[in-house]
Amino acid sequence: LHLPLPTSLHLKWATLAAQKKKHVLLEKPVAVTVAELDQILAACEANGVQFMDGTMWVHHPRTAKMREFLDDKRRFGELRTIQSCFTFAAPESFLKDDIRVKPDLDSLGALGDAGWYGVRAILWAADYHLPKTVVATPGSVTSDRGVILACGASLHWEDGKSATFHCSFLTHLTMFLTAIGTQGTLQLNDFIIPFQEHEASFSTSSRAGFDDQVTRWEPGPRQEVAGIDGVPQEVRLIEEMARLVGEIKVGGAGKVDREWGARSRKTQQVLNAVKESIEKGFVPVEIA
Amino acid sequence: LHLPLPTSLHLKWATLAAQKKKHVLLEKPVAVTVAELDQILAACEANGVQFMDGTMWVHHPRTAKMREFLDDKRRFGELRTIQSCFTFAAPESFLKDDIRVKPDLDSLGALGDAGWYGVRAILWAADYHLPKTVVATPGSVTSDRGVILACGASLHWEDGKSATFHCSFLTHLTMFLTAIGTQGTLQLNDFIIPFQEHEASFSTSSRAGFDDQVTRWEPGPRQEVAGIDGVPQEVRLIEEMARLVGEIKVGGAGKVDREWGARSRKTQQVLNAVKESIEKGFVPVEIA
Repeated sequence: LHLPLPTSLHLKWATLAAQKKKHVLLEKPVAVTVAELDQILAACEANGVQFMDGTMWVHHPRTAKMREFLDDKRRFGELRTIQSCFTFAAPESFLKDDIRVKPDLDSLGALGDAGWYGVRAILWAADYHLPKTVVATPGSVTSDRGVILACGASLHWEDGKSATFHCSFLTHLTMFLTAIGTQGTLQLNDFIIPFQEHEASFSTSSRAGFDDQVTRWEPGPRQEVAGIDGVPQEVRLIEEMARLVGEIKVGGAGKVDREWGARSRKTQQVLNAVKESIEKGFVPVEIA
Repeated sequence: LHLPLPTSLHLKWATLAAQKKKHVLLEKPVAVTVAELDQILAACEANGVQFMDGTMWVHHPRTAKMREFLDDKRRFGELRTIQSCFTFAAPESFLKDDIRVKPDLDSLGALGDAGWYGVRAILWAADYHLPKTVVATPGSVTSDRGVILACGASLHWEDGKSATFHCSFLTHLTMFLTAIGTQGTLQLNDFIIPFQEHEASFSTSSRAGFDDQVTRWEPGPRQEVAGIDGVPQEVRLIEEMARLVGEIKVGGAGKVDREWGARSRKTQQVLNAVKESIEKGFVPVEIA
């Protein structure tokens, strides 16, 4: 069952679907609170159905290729910092009527929608290790009705890693992800929806410096390309879901893959910590 | 006179040079404090000599071309947010012995060195309008000797614009500048030193969205290229300085161009506010 419903209705309908033994594919943000998501995940687990969220880009073949670079100690080294951004200029009608700007339907607003991708990308880069602390950046924009229209935050890990993200419904379409290690850098400006349909690329740079006159990079960055072989990332997501469901059918109830639920939960934890930080006046919030 | 001296010696030597009627080209950071810079600028003014800092990339022809894009209301709209980053992995010897990590010589460390470029890029994008508030991002790294090795901050303008930057001596060479408007986006990953010597490019995107199936951008971004015509940006900086000096000679003492000093001063103001924010525990600091 694919549930593209307002977030506030996810708890009711996703748990109902799980009880009816339907596998659950939830759009982001998966829930309004972590507690709600835990009820959904528990219902999926109890009923032996698979849970997955609708984050498509992680299923793109480019993502696997980028992972190889981040895992390459020689080329990338140790991950130290990540910057991510996803903004788009929502039309007037969206800002007035879309479910993502109605407090009773989706109080997380831009944070739950655009911010979901930025936070997920950061967690993906950090191998899904949770940060210890989250601090929202001052200057977030909230609508008259209390829905977040633009915000950002920095994330801090116990080992000194840090990350920042920015999300907005109020500025031109922009998406980037930069992951910086001790030996290399990964950069791309279309991580959620690739610029082109059949080919997606990203830039890598390793042990770069400048020439003697400091007039150019040496070595320069590389563009790495991943073809899509005719199957868009949306289809790959469904294929992965079907594969997992197939494995459950073979192995019997209880053999669900918990990894996808855990990734959704971590994303939700960070989003809710950012919201709490905003509400408390941009103070640091510990992630439990 | 070109003064590539440790920052703490700038006040003494730059004012002395000005008194000897030498024009002053100062390496960044131009001073340890804004008060020191003010003394240098006053000495230059009193002696009718030109002041300029050594920020080279603003003299690259690409920068003028990028300015045209940012000024284009139809393509870019109103500037809303800027992200900037400059990091490089300094070798052990640098971290031990370079003047930029000695508290008596350059207490601003990575903030005054790498951060100078990020802050300057933000101010450049914002047409040199100063932010009202600056907040350092938690998680900055300071050496045993109290020198900043990595830090970041968010900047906030009265009109709601915001910016973030990150700088570090501890991670792989990375530089990016993203300026997002209501109608367009500017992005480049080599704003300080171009990847190539004879040609530099940047990416622009205007009124972008996705195709109906949301599988690609429509329209996609454009790569805009600016040739360098055999004269690197370092030489252009010197040429500009020489041109200004020539005008002083024609017009007589007192006709110095104050704009370059004002730009250096604003950059210094933001840097020192970030330092104050770090020292006070990442609290917001107002820019006077």
